[in-house]
Amino acid sequence: MNRPLILITNDDGITSIGIKVLVNVMSTLGEVMVVAPDSPQSGMGHAITVGNTLRLSETKVFNGIKSYQCSGTPVDCVKLAKHYVLKDRKPDLLVSGINHGPNTSISVVYSGTMAAALEAAIDSIPAIGFSVCDYSPKAKFDHVSGHVEKIAQRVLESGLPDGIALNVNFPGAHAGPVKGIKICRQAKARWKEAFDERIDPYGERYFWMAGDFINMDDNTDNDIWAISNNYVSVVPTQLDMTAHHIIESLKKNFNQDE
Amino acid sequence: MNRPLILITNDDGITSIGIKVLVNVMSTLGEVMVVAPDSPQSGMGHAITVGNTLRLSETKVFNGIKSYQCSGTPVDCVKLAKHYVLKDRKPDLLVSGINHGPNTSISVVYSGTMAAALEAAIDSIPAIGFSVCDYSPKAKFDHVSGHVEKIAQRVLESGLPDGIALNVNFPGAHAGPVKGIKICRQAKARWKEAFDERIDPYGERYFWMAGDFINMDDNTDNDIWAISNNYVSVVPTQLDMTAHHIIESLKKNFNQDE
Repeated sequence: MNRPLILITNDDGITSIGIKVLVNVMSTLGEVMVVAPDSPQSGMGHAITVGNTLRLSETKVFNGIKSYQCSGTPVDCVKLAKHYVLKDRKPDLLVSGINHGPNTSISVVYSGTMAAALEAAIDSIPAIGFSVCDYSPKAKFDHVSGHVEKIAQRVLESGLPDGIALNVNFPGAHAGPVKGIKICRQAKARWKEAFDERIDPYGERYFWMAGDFINMDDNTDNDIWAISNNYVSVVPTQLDMTAHHIIESLKKNFNQDE
Repeated sequence: MNRPLILITNDDGITSIGIKVLVNVMSTLGEVMVVAPDSPQSGMGHAITVGNTLRLSETKVFNGIKSYQCSGTPVDCVKLAKHYVLKDRKPDLLVSGINHGPNTSISVVYSGTMAAALEAAIDSIPAIGFSVCDYSPKAKFDHVSGHVEKIAQRVLESGLPDGIALNVNFPGAHAGPVKGIKICRQAKARWKEAFDERIDPYGERYFWMAGDFINMDDNTDNDIWAISNNYVSVVPTQLDMTAHHIIESLKKNFNQDE
């Protein structure tokens, strides 16, 4: 029997610890191939490289694993993997991460990790983005490996509905034992930026983007609640951004049938 | 009476024709301020600048209009405008574009134009992204100015529900007279990339991303149908990416209540 083909990418870059954990776990489940950014691509969202060139080269970062590094974004990596590296062979699963830092609530929109997973879902490839709520490059992953394997195994067995990718977030290792898995929705939240203004050695102004995360969701059925209560959050995500519930009232407002 | 404050940005860069048209139209409706990228940022989606610095400088690109150019993405521009340039003053409207090229169906996900509008919607600022289905830097906009003014005026008068931004696409000028406005949903479609492989002068391989747009939607209630039939498409968009309809079946699949 053929082993399933598992494509791996991330947004922290091919040398990060998180992707190494993912490669190790996935190697127990199937044939693994890696196409990942050659540099950190955090916050790139669903960006693609337009009007500029892309580089792709084979690497030996992972022992015995076919792997490529790409100069582009996480979504570029998935597109190159789908349409160039793998040509007509469709992966059975794409996994992205494990991201160093949470991709809960509104952060899913800025996340290269989740954009890569959703890009696979566009072509009906079952896909999962994994993140740990610890921004440190030295984040610990021992407490998540078992869950990563279990969730990936479940998706390999059962598949996912067309166009759906799972957004999986784990509490950081410091938070103590994980209580279990919560299937939930994206919490309502936002970032409020505070720009750190500085002067460079040439006397010119520049900024660092910083900010505070503001949770606006008091309910218990969302990913922020799950993580805050030491559960693994699993949010099914998709790319239809239409606000379907607004369409009828908007028709009236714009007198469409006049 | 105070004139409404209208914030303008785009993703083709501050010197493009499309944003100039938007500045001219919006100047008839209110007080205008521009914060736009200093270079083309097409395909940047909801990317933000993380781990790198941002520049912002005042420009004289538009006669008598307060305007700034930013080294970052369209979403960076909106964040800098909201939290630094305007400080505590909230715009009455954000408009983004007019994009040279369509942002219908799945393209909304890759679109810097629409990401900027949605970033404003996160902070409850009514927002509209405008695009014309003509990629040319010399695209014609005469046929859209009247519609742009009418739609912006309507939103200034009636507002938009919290968290909603309008995705407005116009047929290209070559398509003949516009028939009217259709409120619709994002069509189901995808891009199939074909990577153009070349060798640089140093003997190294590189790629240009190219591709074909594949419409998978046979219905008439979507933006591809509207544009193809020479209507202006207006899709209400939002940033909750949760696949709400999947949550219950996923709970069963993951035996959440075990």
